[in-house]
Amino acid sequence: MKTKLRTHTCGELRITDVTKEVVLSGWVQTIRKMGAITFIDLRDRYGITQIYIDSKAEYISSLVDSGAVKMNDFTSETAIKDIESLTRECVIRIKGGVVERVNPNPLLDTGKIEVVVFAIQILNRAITPPFTIEDETDGGDELRMKYRYLDLRRNPVRKNLELRHRLAIETRNYLDKQNFLEVETPVLIKSTPEGARDFVVPSRMHSGEFYALPQSPQTFKQLLMVSGFDRYYQIVKCFRDEDLRADRQPEFTQIDCEMSFVEQEDILNMFEGLVTHLFKTVKGVDIPKLAHMTYADAMKYYGNDKPDTRFEMKFVELTELVKGKAFKVFDDAELVVGICAKGAAEYTRKQLDELTEFVKRPQIGATGLIYARHNADGTIKSSVDKFYSEEELKKWSTAFNSQPGDLILILAGTEDKARKALSELRLEMGTRLGLRDKNKFSCLWVIDFPLLEWNDGDPNLLASLAGRWHAKHHPFTSPKPEDIELLNSNPGAVRANAYDMVINGVEIGGGSIRIHNKDLQAKMFEILGFTKEDAQNQFGFLMNAFEYGAPPHGGLAFGFDRLCSLFGGSDSIRDFIAFPKNNAGRDVMIDSPSMISDEQLNELHILVKETKK
Amino acid sequence: MKTKLRTHTCGELRITDVTKEVVLSGWVQTIRKMGAITFIDLRDRYGITQIYIDSKAEYISSLVDSGAVKMNDFTSETAIKDIESLTRECVIRIKGGVVERVNPNPLLDTGKIEVVVFAIQILNRAITPPFTIEDETDGGDELRMKYRYLDLRRNPVRKNLELRHRLAIETRNYLDKQNFLEVETPVLIKSTPEGARDFVVPSRMHSGEFYALPQSPQTFKQLLMVSGFDRYYQIVKCFRDEDLRADRQPEFTQIDCEMSFVEQEDILNMFEGLVTHLFKTVKGVDIPKLAHMTYADAMKYYGNDKPDTRFEMKFVELTELVKGKAFKVFDDAELVVGICAKGAAEYTRKQLDELTEFVKRPQIGATGLIYARHNADGTIKSSVDKFYSEEELKKWSTAFNSQPGDLILILAGTEDKARKALSELRLEMGTRLGLRDKNKFSCLWVIDFPLLEWNDGDPNLLASLAGRWHAKHHPFTSPKPEDIELLNSNPGAVRANAYDMVINGVEIGGGSIRIHNKDLQAKMFEILGFTKEDAQNQFGFLMNAFEYGAPPHGGLAFGFDRLCSLFGGSDSIRDFIAFPKNNAGRDVMIDSPSMISDEQLNELHILVKETKK
Repeated sequence: MKTKLRTHTCGELRITDVTKEVVLSGWVQTIRKMGAITFIDLRDRYGITQIYIDSKAEYISSLVDSGAVKMNDFTSETAIKDIESLTRECVIRIKGGVVERVNPNPLLDTGKIEVVVFAIQILNRAITPPFTIEDETDGGDELRMKYRYLDLRRNPVRKNLELRHRLAIETRNYLDKQNFLEVETPVLIKSTPEGARDFVVPSRMHSGEFYALPQSPQTFKQLLMVSGFDRYYQIVKCFRDEDLRADRQPEFTQIDCEMSFVEQEDILNMFEGLVTHLFKTVKGVDIPKLAHMTYADAMKYYGNDKPDTRFEMKFVELTELVKGKAFKVFDDAELVVGICAKGAAEYTRKQLDELTEFVKRPQIGATGLIYARHNADGTIKSSVDKFYSEEELKKWSTAFNSQPGDLILILAGTEDKARKALSELRLEMGTRLGLRDKNKFSCLWVIDFPLLEWNDGDPNLLASLAGRWHAKHHPFTSPKPEDIELLNSNPGAVRANAYDMVINGVEIGGGSIRIHNKDLQAKMFEILGFTKEDAQNQFGFLMNAFEYGAPPHGGLAFGFDRLCSLFGGSDSIRDFIAFPKNNAGRDVMIDSPSMISDEQLNELHILVKETKK
Repeated sequence: MKTKLRTHTCGELRITDVTKEVVLSGWVQTIRKMGAITFIDLRDRYGITQIYIDSKAEYISSLVDSGAVKMNDFTSETAIKDIESLTRECVIRIKGGVVERVNPNPLLDTGKIEVVVFAIQILNRAITPPFTIEDETDGGDELRMKYRYLDLRRNPVRKNLELRHRLAIETRNYLDKQNFLEVETPVLIKSTPEGARDFVVPSRMHSGEFYALPQSPQTFKQLLMVSGFDRYYQIVKCFRDEDLRADRQPEFTQIDCEMSFVEQEDILNMFEGLVTHLFKTVKGVDIPKLAHMTYADAMKYYGNDKPDTRFEMKFVELTELVKGKAFKVFDDAELVVGICAKGAAEYTRKQLDELTEFVKRPQIGATGLIYARHNADGTIKSSVDKFYSEEELKKWSTAFNSQPGDLILILAGTEDKARKALSELRLEMGTRLGLRDKNKFSCLWVIDFPLLEWNDGDPNLLASLAGRWHAKHHPFTSPKPEDIELLNSNPGAVRANAYDMVINGVEIGGGSIRIHNKDLQAKMFEILGFTKEDAQNQFGFLMNAFEYGAPPHGGLAFGFDRLCSLFGGSDSIRDFIAFPKNNAGRDVMIDSPSMISDEQLNELHILVKETKK
């Protein structure tokens, strides 16, 4: 790491370096003055080294006299008295001698030494930062976003990006060993807004025409399979013009992969291998073989296609059991379903009220919460005791296999709503009971997703796509061969050869076996409401390619930002992106998006519409 | 490589595999029928395996009978007679037994074996490709671009992308070992069209505002240095909306690097190390230590800031020597300059006429060519003998250090034009004399570039930037400290701490030491014609960052596409890009750019201007 400006980094010197003359460069982390003596913690990416300045130079002289440091070329190129003006975050370069520290600091790798300064050069001064550059900072979110370059100086943020770097390296190591070729696919492609909205780029050379930024390299990686590339990957930026929900970014990074001559199980094995490798090499964790759970089971037992399986607390359906006892809520419900929270029978009235409020929040939307305590004495008391006898409640207990000390929580309503709400409640109970430890990892494959879902008017899709079938994964996903005959009669029942990897309740990756037959692909576009002309216009190149010998193929993509945040133990992907955008899709540091000049607009053959006042 | 669909690849089987039962999948490369017997070369990315089908199954029976192959589960799931309908490029899967080949093919890694087919499955049929899928194809450029997925099947094209993959891996290996961190910078940034034109992206959420695609991650990597990242790299897509010259692409890939606490020499050493590593690991070539040549010398001796130094043939200036002999062309010229082409004295009149035509082409623009033959007998004969005596010509010979057998070629004119034209002539002579061998590599650093150049109206810049100083490298490049005082008095004379790596006459990479001081950066913007407001509006974030402790830093970027083409021995970068665009910036395969819907335009708050009829 030796350069003209330093012989060592600030994380490098050890006790064996004592007596060496060194040159260090870095940032002033802290300054402590004790009379004529000043201690500075000098910081760079690699660590912190304590340096020691005696402005009267007495100490230095004594060290030299005693032979404790060698002094080959003491210079006074910058006077030591310059240190009077030093402030935190100034960038300095010092020449000095390494000495053993009287009071070692066991928290620092360099803690056994310090550097006695012979000469100091101020490389650049710093005004006072808008927030403290320390592990725990006093800066708020927007302020730190605006001064992201200062936030990146903080250890926890830098470590997040170091983790990202390491995950990228290990991903490449694994895939390279498995004979995957990294191939770059284009960024300026064609708008095919049948998925989410595209970002588009007006063409200067082709008036009135636009490129689009890829939502994924999907069609290109499939073409690479038609080309015989066999195994492809790319760690690649993708773009989606969405109304940003919390923790989404308009540009995001995927580990994008595709394989030929495979069936679903080959892909699951290959990428289970990748994730196992990453956990092993990056976190030192051995994860067990991944369970496979059907989408149907995930919905039935967890009300969610990305179940958090760090804890059980599976759904139990009570619909038949509870009907006919004059309790109208249950009698009228399409579904009555509950969970058993182990050891929560002691929950106070206040806690139960909180849970009721939780499920009644508009974004969850339940109308109420029924509970039954399985008391320590074996009795069971419910909030609906006037409708259900002790005998009936015993049947509930049996259904849930509850034990004394457990709390049964029940929701009722329409099938969809009750499941969704109970899923949220289950996660909330998991959190409250401490069952969602960020250092524990539960990975699984969810398989057999439905091929299609009905679009009632998804705000992330163009309005013109509402009232149609929409591909659950994407239009290139293969239906299960045994379900193909349902495509006409009951499209919603067709299952796909599609799979998601779910870790701790987060969808980390997903993919599918693709269609590789032109007729089936055309049929799929027809079901999705494309005219023949639209399908040919937008995806003709792919369907044509299938006519020239397309191999069976499939693949998947991991959300790399999300994977990093999972490994980093954070819920936020933004912490793992060097220069993220805020929830309005704005980079507040560079102030983008922004206006462009009329000259630019003219050249691009576009006009900006007058905004409504 | 074992999957459900194959036990081995088509490049894998060896003599030691004989008697194994195998399953292979791949493309039909060739079909040769010999009566009831059909030979197929089965191809995948890994190689070719000859398979052998006996439609009467007599041969198979005899092999089984003799014990030459084991046959565990002969199936007739797909009748062997299906092969009658097989065509080239069909995708098939076969089960068979490995046998030793009677006539081995030494050109194939699998040439000692063949596979006798027990069962065959046609995975996908192929219609006739529009050009032959062979190393030498009959397809023209546009046709192959349109069917790029088929062109990518050809060995030479696939090998180019494999080379690219390997160069990326070795680049990362080297930089990782040198403690560089790979950090992804954003793609949706802000338009700052002081360099080339930006591609822009209209924002849906912020009416009338636009993102821009990065021409390079320049400001972000500098901010990472301000953040203390110390060593950064990225293999990253960049974008430039240029009028495409031959072999430019609107999107291209850079190896982008930046380092802190360095001087120019540190950077040159670090990246000389990278290129040395790449030549060694990828091509097995040891390159010598790189020469450093100043920009001034490059222009003086080669008329070019990216000299091809595989051969000497340096410029010799004759201006003073040749004046005053009544030859008006020389007398009127600002510069008379020539080269000595070793061993070309025997050039015929026709060849010399060709050279004259060459330099008179409009894109070169010389008005004529003067030559002098240094004959084998020691005499010197020139095309201007009536003005110059044998005595005078001897002086020319001395100036060029010409030997018997050499040809002296001289141009005259204005300084700039004469040098540029002679540079072209030198390269032409290098080519004609076989001095530009693609397997020989001559690498050097060109240093001390001018900081600024005058923009007379560069068509690749916005018209509004004409008549101003323009940054030769970019506005963040540091002037040489000793030249800073010239910034006001003589901006054109200021040299920069900027450098290019040139290999075989191609600029492979370039960079600079950056400004890290707010005032100097502001001064630079002023010289470039920015108002204070414009500078603050476009680059305020960077100048502000410099106030919080910015370290000295610098870096460079390699053109990765160009590097790949150099390593691949090609002049075209397009051959090394999976899905390139044509010279009109169009992807003819997917037909992009293209129109987008009114619904999309509406949501983006833009209108397309009526095109002129």
